[in-house]
Amino acid sequence: MTQLLKVQNFMLSRDGFGAGEGQCMERPFGHADPATMGAWAFATASWPGRTDNAGSRGLDDFLIRDFHHNIGAEIMGRNKFSPHRGPWTDHEWQGWWGYEPPFHTPVFVLTHHPRPSFTLSDTTFHFVDGDPAKVLEQAKEAADGKDVRLGGGATSVRQFLDADLVDTLHVAVLPDYELGAGTRLWESPDELLDRFHRDVVPSPGGGVIHHLYWRK
Amino acid sequence: MTQLLKVQNFMLSRDGFGAGEGQCMERPFGHADPATMGAWAFATASWPGRTDNAGSRGLDDFLIRDFHHNIGAEIMGRNKFSPHRGPWTDHEWQGWWGYEPPFHTPVFVLTHHPRPSFTLSDTTFHFVDGDPAKVLEQAKEAADGKDVRLGGGATSVRQFLDADLVDTLHVAVLPDYELGAGTRLWESPDELLDRFHRDVVPSPGGGVIHHLYWRK
Repeated sequence: MTQLLKVQNFMLSRDGFGAGEGQCMERPFGHADPATMGAWAFATASWPGRTDNAGSRGLDDFLIRDFHHNIGAEIMGRNKFSPHRGPWTDHEWQGWWGYEPPFHTPVFVLTHHPRPSFTLSDTTFHFVDGDPAKVLEQAKEAADGKDVRLGGGATSVRQFLDADLVDTLHVAVLPDYELGAGTRLWESPDELLDRFHRDVVPSPGGGVIHHLYWRK
Repeated sequence: MTQLLKVQNFMLSRDGFGAGEGQCMERPFGHADPATMGAWAFATASWPGRTDNAGSRGLDDFLIRDFHHNIGAEIMGRNKFSPHRGPWTDHEWQGWWGYEPPFHTPVFVLTHHPRPSFTLSDTTFHFVDGDPAKVLEQAKEAADGKDVRLGGGATSVRQFLDADLVDTLHVAVLPDYELGAGTRLWESPDELLDRFHRDVVPSPGGGVIHHLYWRK
């Protein structure tokens, strides 16, 4: 059974940015507005934060509820985990997600700065240095036969794309939302077509165009 | 947690038939050609019958790999289970699927003719009489908190639709394939719009148009 490396539900502005500039504690996505970027996802029945019994169960919901399907580990960039930069001054910061992080698997945080692993509920965060291939190997071993999610941000996804390690990508592009600056995934969605097949599927719910890539 | 009743990957001719006329041992779908009806599904990486490492991982694959997601039981019509009609003359027939049926859950077969339950691998077949609401209640109990799949054929789906028990339907319509006769799901895909929301999503892979309904 092949273990895939997958990018899922990655939200992107029309001009190719996954997050804006100026990330800080109050603005995890910098000047990008997460409520706008994620509106299509928050409207689905399967969005993990949902506590009522409402929400759509059409196309967008299929994409959202696939999130945990056969995933055994996540790899994320340091800047997805934390607004801090440089060496850890203390170990108080444990991510944005509270005591019940939505991952439920081992998570490998890419950083040059060592830090001990810790566990919150059923998610364990490991802090790893090394090139993408080596980190992927660690994550695959931890995933125990299941696939590995590459959780972003854009800089980390680019790193793994450049090393040709990504097997599938789902990028949700907002056709009416521009950021002008921030962390960039691509100049154009066509860049990847030399190495990937692609389906382009406008959400009938509106507001987002799904780009589904898989390796040739 | 609400338990849903779901119709998944239900394949339909342009003129509304799920299967043709003249079902028999050699032709489970009557004069309908299952290779044509299912071509879009067989091309995906997640099709259960696939043994190689190939296949598409775009939109169609999301729909196919959702099949087992949170499903704890299936309900199917007698004519999906068997080409025989009337009382069971013997109990030799155990379905079309060999020793490893692709359900992996309890399966409730709708029939007026009693027959003892039996198990093949991790699938147990029960034979149940009674109105749709009562059968659904049994299936939900067996599903142990998970959703219930309504597996077809068209006649059974109609029965549960008429009783207003279906929560979501995914119908894959072949726009270029007509059957003229057989078991009918609908006269028009718009019939259900009084009770359901709907996304219509043409597969970028071609050959099929996905209709995704969910209860209003």
